[in-house]
Amino acid sequence: MIKLYWKNSAAETVGEAGGVSQAELEGISARLAAAHSAVMGQINAGNLGYAALPGRSDHRDAVAEMACRYRKGTTDLVVLGIGGSALGNIALQTALNPSTYNLLSDRRRPGPRLFVLDNVDPALVGDVLALLGRRLGTTVFNVISKSGETAETAAQFMIVREMLRKRLGEGFARQIVATTDAEKGTLREVALADGYATLSVPPDVGGRFSVLSPVGLFSAAMCGIDIDALLAGAAEMARRAADGDWRANPACMLAAIKYLLCARGRAIHVMMPYSNRLSALADWYRQLWAESLGKRLDRAGEQVFAGPTPVRALGATDQHSQAQLYLEGPEDKLVVFLSVARHPRDVRIPDTLGEFEGMAYLGKAKLSRLLGDEKVGMEYALMLARRPSVTIRFDAVDPESVGAFIYLYEFVTSLMGELMNVNAYDQPAVELIKRATFARMGRAGHECLAREVAAFARTDDKFLV
Amino acid sequence: MIKLYWKNSAAETVGEAGGVSQAELEGISARLAAAHSAVMGQINAGNLGYAALPGRSDHRDAVAEMACRYRKGTTDLVVLGIGGSALGNIALQTALNPSTYNLLSDRRRPGPRLFVLDNVDPALVGDVLALLGRRLGTTVFNVISKSGETAETAAQFMIVREMLRKRLGEGFARQIVATTDAEKGTLREVALADGYATLSVPPDVGGRFSVLSPVGLFSAAMCGIDIDALLAGAAEMARRAADGDWRANPACMLAAIKYLLCARGRAIHVMMPYSNRLSALADWYRQLWAESLGKRLDRAGEQVFAGPTPVRALGATDQHSQAQLYLEGPEDKLVVFLSVARHPRDVRIPDTLGEFEGMAYLGKAKLSRLLGDEKVGMEYALMLARRPSVTIRFDAVDPESVGAFIYLYEFVTSLMGELMNVNAYDQPAVELIKRATFARMGRAGHECLAREVAAFARTDDKFLV
Repeated sequence: MIKLYWKNSAAETVGEAGGVSQAELEGISARLAAAHSAVMGQINAGNLGYAALPGRSDHRDAVAEMACRYRKGTTDLVVLGIGGSALGNIALQTALNPSTYNLLSDRRRPGPRLFVLDNVDPALVGDVLALLGRRLGTTVFNVISKSGETAETAAQFMIVREMLRKRLGEGFARQIVATTDAEKGTLREVALADGYATLSVPPDVGGRFSVLSPVGLFSAAMCGIDIDALLAGAAEMARRAADGDWRANPACMLAAIKYLLCARGRAIHVMMPYSNRLSALADWYRQLWAESLGKRLDRAGEQVFAGPTPVRALGATDQHSQAQLYLEGPEDKLVVFLSVARHPRDVRIPDTLGEFEGMAYLGKAKLSRLLGDEKVGMEYALMLARRPSVTIRFDAVDPESVGAFIYLYEFVTSLMGELMNVNAYDQPAVELIKRATFARMGRAGHECLAREVAAFARTDDKFLV
Repeated sequence: MIKLYWKNSAAETVGEAGGVSQAELEGISARLAAAHSAVMGQINAGNLGYAALPGRSDHRDAVAEMACRYRKGTTDLVVLGIGGSALGNIALQTALNPSTYNLLSDRRRPGPRLFVLDNVDPALVGDVLALLGRRLGTTVFNVISKSGETAETAAQFMIVREMLRKRLGEGFARQIVATTDAEKGTLREVALADGYATLSVPPDVGGRFSVLSPVGLFSAAMCGIDIDALLAGAAEMARRAADGDWRANPACMLAAIKYLLCARGRAIHVMMPYSNRLSALADWYRQLWAESLGKRLDRAGEQVFAGPTPVRALGATDQHSQAQLYLEGPEDKLVVFLSVARHPRDVRIPDTLGEFEGMAYLGKAKLSRLLGDEKVGMEYALMLARRPSVTIRFDAVDPESVGAFIYLYEFVTSLMGELMNVNAYDQPAVELIKRATFARMGRAGHECLAREVAAFARTDDKFLV
């Protein structure tokens, strides 16, 4: 389904400074094996929740049942969530449905229109709610929050709940599906009190690893995506990633290359799909990479200020935007291409305008070939500049491949955490922002912080230009 | 309209390591003045084409006339362009029309639906063309390419032209508006032969500086955006940027901060709007920054491998994705926030669910306040970590402010080119990728390169995992 091709990160291709040599790989062989053992040990002990998701038929069944119950008669589905409660949903929808999905007629769409409100931007929220207007009675809101206390999601939920209550009266609760902790938390309590249908966020899976749980699966199933195939692809990659022979294991090879190059200063890790469908997977990766590996302290408590910076790009588009920098700027990048052998559809360029030399050569080719050749051109230029790249090759843009890709990157993230000796599963710095927001918004218990932040926020005209 | 607030990049706020001190600013004062003089000299000599755009009433009149001619009866507008022929169009539309624009009924939309096809992804192109289906007779295709030889745009154009010819017969030419060089080039020739309406790309304006020319203005005018106000905002910023007192000049202050921090290793320049509407301006900035400043050689011909890496983020969304890394990862970033005082619309959070402490504090606030407070929280956390940020404050998301922002960043880019001593107006590395693509696609004259690239592109199974 997907394979890693790493020739253009090998020292024999791009030189010792830009690539990894056999000697370097041998040199970290023992550490890599230890990292792999550690991750497999956590998985086998049942301590890495995401690793169990491909096999969780209870989730699959609950989601399928809920989607079956709601699909008929639902014209619009709105996900209220942010971060890990939105990026996976957007990635699956972007990959596995057309970009024109929301514009298709009801007859041609396999499910409801989908809106993922992953911000509290008032224009975004206001515009979407205004659009739904008279369709509220056939709109389902899937509010996703493990605790219910994420400020952005709570605010959206309060707005939507009140709007539904006013417009639909007693029956409003039928339009809400809450995906939240199975037992506790504010959203669970509200769901019980109001009587919403609910799905569970597994307690041992962090937000950024939750796309293959009901968090990501419900909107996918509603929009006609084959969640069984998605989970099967992830399960297949889980089998490949379990292979103790790291040279044959794409997760180990990718982690080794990323780790070695990062340690040599190539700490900007670009993900550049040559496919608009795969572009939102790069946004999903951005969160996974940044929150998991961006850490001040290592596991021994030493200050390390670690973390490669993930960057999303898009081929061929960014050849006309970022390529100049990637080819001539600082030697601080590793480019991970995603390529596609069979696109969901293709378009042939007609054999016309033969009298114009600047166009004639394009005639008869398909767009898929042009896009693939552009990628080769970019890769070739990087190689000549002796800059490393790898490619993750997708046979097709289908649920199996996407599921495999998701599991691959989750596993690579775990391996990177081991190699870098950081905790890949927490996000300590985000707490302070949350508390500062609570303080600004007047939540009880934050009065002292509120005064400090208020002093900070006062404009000093000396610095205003 | 827009102002720069830089207190949180000052050494007195974030410390000497993270911020710029008065002494440092004084230290580059002379160089900054020289850079400003150099740029103003080029402008006054008529050598910086983009600087003249806010005053080009000929462009404005031609675009207004063309939009007047086409708006009535046009249901859909499709831009065929890539890079500088697409990013400005997308940025203007995203900023100045709702995110739901294409989903609004014809009656509620101020103009045609807009699709910007900025890639040759076969699924993207195929899906959009399939969607237009029976509306082709009321769809206008605006093909934008200075030469007409950009492979991606040429391919799209050939597909669209043939489709229109087949479906509409002789009258097909009426559905195409070509924006291209006024005198020469392949697209100009085809336009003449076929009889398209045309607009001009000014010959002395590079693609990434062209948004305020007919390249960006036509789709904006078609979609109801006030291009006079846009140009007026840019003109007003041009006046501010001309100020020789660099302490009072936002362009100079921003360039100084970016240059000084970049030279100290803060070479990842994040742009993080707290507004979905402004998010695509960050994509536009990405091209401007990367292509202009990412250079192997300085103007003296020395190898410098220069160029800060632009990164696009979005607040508050990326607080749940990138903030952990920005706060705890390597000290290699400068965050440029964009904030908005008056959003295009607002939504009040109802005062309900008071019995749930985790939600009650949100009641009665507006989303605009929550979003603003989130931004303060992020800024505050960065300050505590002694990491620099600046804010560009928008009074509103309106054409004046957006025009001002565009001109500001173009001017800052020119200043950065002077300070870094690189040519900010070329993109030499992109040529090789283009030639490699020509070679792959069999364009005459590239046979030798084609053989080399073919050898390169052959899969070596040794590296396939």
